[in-house]
Amino acid sequence: MTASSSPTRVLETVLYARDLGAIEDFYRRVLAMEPHAKAEGRQVFYRVGDQMLLFFNPVMTSRALADDAELPVPPHGAEGEGHVCFGATSDEIAAWRQRLAREGVSVEADFQWPGGGRSIYFRDPAGNCVEFAEPRIWNIE
Amino acid sequence: MTASSSPTRVLETVLYARDLGAIEDFYRRVLAMEPHAKAEGRQVFYRVGDQMLLFFNPVMTSRALADDAELPVPPHGAEGEGHVCFGATSDEIAAWRQRLAREGVSVEADFQWPGGGRSIYFRDPAGNCVEFAEPRIWNIE
Repeated sequence: MTASSSPTRVLETVLYARDLGAIEDFYRRVLAMEPHAKAEGRQVFYRVGDQMLLFFNPVMTSRALADDAELPVPPHGAEGEGHVCFGATSDEIAAWRQRLAREGVSVEADFQWPGGGRSIYFRDPAGNCVEFAEPRIWNIE
Repeated sequence: MTASSSPTRVLETVLYARDLGAIEDFYRRVLAMEPHAKAEGRQVFYRVGDQMLLFFNPVMTSRALADDAELPVPPHGAEGEGHVCFGATSDEIAAWRQRLAREGVSVEADFQWPGGGRSIYFRDPAGNCVEFAEPRIWNIE
């Protein structure tokens, strides 16, 4: 690594939810996502491509750990509506839109960006703003 | 896409900060990250590998947009300490640790996971918990 290097990849993307059971049900039912690991009431972890999407209950993770905790993982935790976007092709976004309709999930927005590329948005049970978008909205393949 | 498909990639990872100027200064000085785009007081966007890392000011983005907004981007915004982890090799993490020391940034935790792989943690000016970790902590290459 040279002095001018910057981070090359995101390994963990994080969202928060107090009711992790509702998160697990929703992401399984609507997005066909199965947890990679979980700790009841504290966290639910998913693998997405070559990285992780982690849900934490901020009530649990924003507390400092006990002095005798096995690993000194720092506290963190946010409240409010977070946001994540999954990359998808145009055809996949059309299919996701149909699937959301079948599952009774409202699509809050669905539009083409001026530079090209479609985004659709909906909410998870914690209010997080979940998006599918074509990577080309960022000039990414 | 088949009915059993799940999302294949994360395109946007999101953190929040009220003082985006402090974020831009910190990520440039400490992590050598240059914004891909920004809107003063509202957002600063970075490209990291084949995805985006987006910082939003929740004071601005948690409000519903005006009826005449160009694009119906839904509101979102969280308060508190978020978390992101960048993937890095063992050698890169050692170099990041040195760089953090040179820049006077405290390392809040630095340990090996029981299954193998190192993580180091520090805070950005908004209090977000920033981590570098070896992807093998998740059995990811």
